Amino acid sequence: SARSFRGPVAVVLPAGGCGERMGLSTPKQFCKLLDRPLISYTIHAFERIKWIEAVIVVVAEQHVELMKSIIQKYNHEKTQWCVGGLTRHRSIFNGLSVFVDDKFMECHLTKPKVVIIHDAVRPFVNEDILLKIATAANDHGAAGAIRPLVSTVIATNSEHFLDHSLERSKYRASEMPQAFLFDTIYKAYQKCTEYDFEYGTECLHLVLSYCNTQAKLIEGPPTLWKVTYKQDLFAAESLIKETLSQNVCVITDVDQEALQLGHCLKKMLMTQHMDVEVISAEYGKKKLCIPHVSSQESYNIIIIGNTELQEKQEVIDVIANSSMTLLYPMVLILVYISLPESTPFSKKLDEPSAIRRLAKEAKHRNILVYGLLVNYTKDSEELNESLENMCFISKSLMKDRNSALTGQLLVV
Amino acid sequence: SARSFRGPVAVVLPAGGCGERMGLSTPKQFCKLLDRPLISYTIHAFERIKWIEAVIVVVAEQHVELMKSIIQKYNHEKTQWCVGGLTRHRSIFNGLSVFVDDKFMECHLTKPKVVIIHDAVRPFVNEDILLKIATAANDHGAAGAIRPLVSTVIATNSEHFLDHSLERSKYRASEMPQAFLFDTIYKAYQKCTEYDFEYGTECLHLVLSYCNTQAKLIEGPPTLWKVTYKQDLFAAESLIKETLSQNVCVITDVDQEALQLGHCLKKMLMTQHMDVEVISAEYGKKKLCIPHVSSQESYNIIIIGNTELQEKQEVIDVIANSSMTLLYPMVLILVYISLPESTPFSKKLDEPSAIRRLAKEAKHRNILVYGLLVNYTKDSEELNESLENMCFISKSLMKDRNSALTGQLLVV
Ligand SMILES: [Mg+2]
Ligand SMILES: [Mg+2]
Repeated sequence: SARSFRGPVAVVLPAGGCGERMGLSTPKQFCKLLDRPLISYTIHAFERIKWIEAVIVVVAEQHVELMKSIIQKYNHEKTQWCVGGLTRHRSIFNGLSVFVDDKFMECHLTKPKVVIIHDAVRPFVNEDILLKIATAANDHGAAGAIRPLVSTVIATNSEHFLDHSLERSKYRASEMPQAFLFDTIYKAYQKCTEYDFEYGTECLHLVLSYCNTQAKLIEGPPTLWKVTYKQDLFAAESLIKETLSQNVCVITDVDQEALQLGHCLKKMLMTQHMDVEVISAEYGKKKLCIPHVSSQESYNIIIIGNTELQEKQEVIDVIANSSMTLLYPMVLILVYISLPESTPFSKKLDEPSAIRRLAKEAKHRNILVYGLLVNYTKDSEELNESLENMCFISKSLMKDRNSALTGQLLVV
Repeated sequence: SARSFRGPVAVVLPAGGCGERMGLSTPKQFCKLLDRPLISYTIHAFERIKWIEAVIVVVAEQHVELMKSIIQKYNHEKTQWCVGGLTRHRSIFNGLSVFVDDKFMECHLTKPKVVIIHDAVRPFVNEDILLKIATAANDHGAAGAIRPLVSTVIATNSEHFLDHSLERSKYRASEMPQAFLFDTIYKAYQKCTEYDFEYGTECLHLVLSYCNTQAKLIEGPPTLWKVTYKQDLFAAESLIKETLSQNVCVITDVDQEALQLGHCLKKMLMTQHMDVEVISAEYGKKKLCIPHVSSQESYNIIIIGNTELQEKQEVIDVIANSSMTLLYPMVLILVYISLPESTPFSKKLDEPSAIRRLAKEAKHRNILVYGLLVNYTKDSEELNESLENMCFISKSLMKDRNSALTGQLLVV
């Protein structure tokens, strides 16, 4: 079975840091990626796993209100908060105490058999490594993720000269997550000294010292990396955007040009390594496709066809009333087709400003709407260039999720 | 004096790696950021420093042609290449040999007193740390940059259980750059064993073992970080884009609306922490401002005014014929003003497609051209919203340098 042990698993996330290393005014766990605080991504990484039953976030007193509002806004149903101590170890101990201390009885939390400890600033942890760590903790009492050392580790003498360098192959970096039998780590904290609470950094070391429990070490993936510096925030946002731009649902009108455009776009986006699904729907029925889009966990929709904005507004309403936009901004690209024999679209002066108004309102509902006008010509070479351009622009809009450009009508 | 030692300083950049850690087909030093290979950024970080006299890039046999084309395309005048060995140490030794081996005599390189060794994949190294390291090497024979450990370092036993953890405060991560008296590091390589060449990682260790030279260790900034994983490429590109979007030159027409728009834009962009310079120039004279823009090292130009495209084309020609676009893509935003009493700009059907044509041609010259149409109304609240939007969009265009959107006419 995928899970080789019984009993509930809980998570403690120390998030009491003040971000001094970043040189930012906001502690890094509260910095926003795509307008959502980093810590919410980490919480969601745990909440989406069925066998995780509770997440305790440990925050500094001055961040309690902020944390409560995050839990509420992003509907983090498995998550509770408690106030941390002055050091990382005190904060973790406070987090563990929630499960056993009478004063938290109103939380109705069952003491877990295994507890995972993770950093609030490592949002990309996945189920695979969590299951390995939790299982190993169940079997051995303690377990932790390790990674190869990226740099040589050296010892310095007191005058800042090299004393010796460590042989890299014999050492590892100790990362997060770690997991423990709850009773083991709790006992270690009950027994440990004030010095440990003040200066210790390594939970694995505490269970070794005070419970004689040797932690099992498990090689983790590079995605366990920790958001520490400003560049890491950039990297995290780019990774999230990349993940969000991997699949798209294209909903087309049923007329010939719309169907052809949908077909071409699918072919081209697939060469860009995207998963593309094309659905055709008559006027008024496009909104019926949204529950399917939602079930595909796609955060990108392209609607192809010149039908009235009213229909697009209905789609936006269905999206906004689903839970799709709770965690990520949705990209909605409205593709219009300008046929040579009809009135040039650019002369319909109302349309561009109507798109701007609709997009402005949709942005407040976390839906990023962009217009895209394709000049449909019979010249196949020209048409092909337009379509390639359409693919290039669409891909870039889905990748960037740039809120400054919503409501624009782009032309290819 | 800023430089406390005499004699030329050279740099050896081992770049022989194959990028297996990234899981990418292209080795990371050749991955492109804003369409330029990472290694060119690192080379430029050295070439721009006056007291660096030569850079030797050490590449694998199969990358020689690529490296030669990079040196030529980006005009890296202080840089030469040589072929590396199978390990990092062999590659560095080959790089050093260029200065003493007869077979490289045609390079006309003077043997330096001090040599800096750096990684091709740490492009953000700055003059301050290089000067400290080179000076310390001159004084002590060897010096290297160190950083605090990000993770606890642990030793494992043979069954993958925790043996012990190191006390973090006593150890440091050894990073790059490092510097040496040339004769010292060269002697160390001449004396070292085959085992060192195969399995060693640390140059500081070699000079300690074979020349009894204790390296001075110097705390470096976080920007010394190494591009190792895919997320690091994202981070590096974002940092470069952030740096490029810190200053802008605004060139306005001399009419009242253009001057007012320029003034407002300056005020608003400054609240976004940008350095903004506004210059006014009559018709036909905007191109004369470009040498000044170039001297400011600004990679962003906003031209405000409805003058003919011919004038903008002349500006593009001057930019393209300067060396400004050699290293970074230039952003050029053309701001048009739509006055309520005149013909709506959107009815001038030729203009948008003319902008698209001009932008398409400019993109081949590494200039990213975007159009921005401001609806200038007398209603001050509406106008203010337009201007805020203009600022928001301009800032985002300068930040993103998105080549998919060039030639678009955006409306605020
Ligand atoms: Mg933390
Ligand atoms: Mg390397």
